[in-house]
Formats: sequence, structure tokens, C-alpha cells
Amino acid sequence: MKVFIVHAHPEPQSFNAALTNYAKTVLETAGNEVIISDLYGMKFDPVSDRRNFTSQKEQSYFKQQQEERYATENDSFSPDIKAEMEKLFWCDVLIFQFPLWWFGLPGILKGWVDRVFASGKTYGGGKWYDNGIFKGKKAMLSLTTGGKISMYNEVGINGDIHSILYPINHGILHFVGFGVVPQFIVFGATQINDERRKAYLEEYKQRLLSINETHPIIYPVLADFNEEFQLKFPN
Amino acid sequence: MKVFIVHAHPEPQSFNAALTNYAKTVLETAGNEVIISDLYGMKFDPVSDRRNFTSQKEQSYFKQQQEERYATENDSFSPDIKAEMEKLFWCDVLIFQFPLWWFGLPGILKGWVDRVFASGKTYGGGKWYDNGIFKGKKAMLSLTTGGKISMYNEVGINGDIHSILYPINHGILHFVGFGVVPQFIVFGATQINDERRKAYLEEYKQRLLSINETHPIIYPVLADFNEEFQLKFPN
Repeated sequence: MKVFIVHAHPEPQSFNAALTNYAKTVLETAGNEVIISDLYGMKFDPVSDRRNFTSQKEQSYFKQQQEERYATENDSFSPDIKAEMEKLFWCDVLIFQFPLWWFGLPGILKGWVDRVFASGKTYGGGKWYDNGIFKGKKAMLSLTTGGKISMYNEVGINGDIHSILYPINHGILHFVGFGVVPQFIVFGATQINDERRKAYLEEYKQRLLSINETHPIIYPVLADFNEEFQLKFPN
Repeated sequence: MKVFIVHAHPEPQSFNAALTNYAKTVLETAGNEVIISDLYGMKFDPVSDRRNFTSQKEQSYFKQQQEERYATENDSFSPDIKAEMEKLFWCDVLIFQFPLWWFGLPGILKGWVDRVFASGKTYGGGKWYDNGIFKGKKAMLSLTTGGKISMYNEVGINGDIHSILYPINHGILHFVGFGVVPQFIVFGATQINDERRKAYLEEYKQRLLSINETHPIIYPVLADFNEEFQLKFPN
């Protein structure tokens, strides 16, 4: 397997960093290739606008998706974006490693998605969801939370974690075609002891080494929807 | 009313910009004060790390929330963050104006939240949700989507928009105490004609001028949860 880990944490000694480093060791030891984009380490710029492109279709009015399609045709994405796109197309498995900040991706990682998942290049023209460009590849979120596990379900104060992550799992990863395997979560990361951390690393190892055999989350397929993109037979 | 609009769109001629400009005119004409943070115009830096602070509690290991609490005690947030916090505390009503990118906030706005909504300053020590620091103030999302309305509900291909926005409405705005009024959404923004755009502006005007009388979305209150932060009497 070729595994691409997009890593977003500002502290190199963090447990997020430990998870990424451990994933690299475990996966390489098992004969896989691993590439890491350490967004803080790279000083990745997460602001999406004209800086994404080295040429412009329309100077007077910036339409991001139009410019993305133009850049796809003309191979004119900026070098930082092009490098990330190459890793994305190279990989068989994509992993986002991040702390859950404000119930979503850290800004630096959200901006990575905004800039790298460009129209024309990663979706468009009927290429989305189960017909997406990255169909056949797998993706997984690996994250840490501040709050403990009891807070993140239907009766928990923060709401159901599956629902919280749905816009990322379904709306980002599955949108471009990835088969999304269930997320790996370290709850209450700052409050646990070393023994618990070691147990989490061991659990992560098992998840990583079985990712090929892990069934993706099942979502409705394009054929289930009518021309208004509504389910043909709700219930 | 003192209204603070955080605006996140790279094109000054966009419909998002029209909505923000119109809101300013409408609200000021009605005797309110309006402050706008145009994040692209300001070249706001959305990367959250040590740059948020002018002094440090711990040099050897960066713990963001610990540093935030230290900066709260020592008034040592960086000037760009401090300026945004002042607007946040000044306002009675907070509005986020943005295009829905990848089913979430654009990276520049997500990073604004990551940096400005600091522990100690905007939450912590039992100050959250209905006991939050901004209790009594109101907040509203105003957004545009690329897809049309039929795609964004329980039977739509993209999922229910209320569920997609829950991590923002509940997890960001309500978390720090705001009463969150229902979002204003322009669906299929790039596909509608001028007449429809004018109708949306008129609808937005009515929403803005009635915001004081609009009841916030009802969420469970802290008193409904036990010491594990689970609902005391689920069903």
C-alpha cells in the first residue's frame, strides 16, 4: 500500500505526532510506502484564492471553481498545491491526522482541502461520490479530542461524533470517491496516562494493518437518487 | 444593536460580498452599529500556533489551551487576535458570512475561530453552552451553497443541512454561549438570476431586522446532563 498521511498539529511532541510517527514505522515495517505532509512543519498556507494558480482565466472576477478547471486544463496550479495533488493521486490510502478543534478540522487542514481538492482535478463532470475520481482508494480520519468519550454520542453534551464527522467523512473524503473506513479516535487525549496511550497506539496499529480488509462506511449510491438528487424511495 | 460580521470570501464582487454590504446598509439605516472583519481583505492569518501569543508559559512543549489561559491572565494575545476578540466582546450579534466550502467554513474562517475562540477568554471553568461567556448575545450563519436546495435534506445526496451545520451552530457558536438563530442560506448561488438574488436580499433584510425577536435554536441545557455529560433522562 501507498499511504499518504496529512498531519496537522503544531507540536512535534504531541500525541498526534506520536500517532503519525508510529503509523509510519508500523506501515513501513509491514512493507508499505508512507508519505507524510506535516502541514505545520511545511508552513503550508491554508488560504484559498488566486494564489492557488500560476495563470488566470478571468482577471476581473475571481470564480474559484472556474479557475480550478482552467488550471486543470493548463497544468497551472501553484507548486505547493501541485505537490499535494501528486501525493493524493499517488496514494492508495489517505489518512488525516489531527486534533478535533471546534468540532472540525484545524484551519490549516481545512484550507489544505479547500485548495487541493480542486474542481476538474478531484471532482466534476459526474465524477463524485461512488463515481468519484478516487474510487477504489481508502481514506480514514485519525483524531484526538479534548473531551471524554461520554460527551460524544446521541445523549452526550457535544452530540454524536458520527454526525459531527459526517461533513468530513461524507462531504470531503467520500465526495471525491474515497471509500471511508471508520475513524480512529483518541478521546480525552490530554487526560490519559502513558499506559492508555500505549493501548491506543496498539489499537491504531491493528487498524492500520487491517485497513485493506476493513469495509468502508456504507452511503447511498448515485443510482439511488433521482434527477433532483433526492432518494428515489425514501423509506 | 451592535453587529459584528465576519466575512470570508476572496472576491469583493461576489454575492457573499453583496450580502455583507447590504447587511451593513440595512442595519445602519435602522440605527444599528456594524463592524465587519473582511478576512481576505485583512489578509487574516488562519494558522493557529505560538504566533497567537506575545509571551509563552512553556517554551519546550506547546499546549495551545494552556497558552491561551496564560495569555488571558497576562493580556498577551498577539495584536491581530486581540483586535478580533475586542469586536467579539463588543457585539450583541455575531454573523458569519461565507460560502459553504466542503460542507464547512472556509479555512480562513475556521482558522479565525481556532485562534480567536481561546480558552480562558471565550470559554472554560464551567462557562460553556447555556452558561457560556456570550450568553444573551445572538449569532447567525449566513451562507451560500453551490448545490441546489433539493440536495441538502435527509433524502438529498449531500445530507441534511441542519446536520451539516450543527458542528458550527452548536459546537462553535452555542458552545461559547451565543443564542443561535436559524441560518440564512442562498442555495445554488452561482446558478440563480438577478431577480432571485434581489428576492434573497429582501429576505435577508427581513431576517436581519427581526433578529432581536427571533428565537434561538433550542438545545438541551447544562442542567439536563449528569456528571458524565450525558442526558439524565434520555427518552
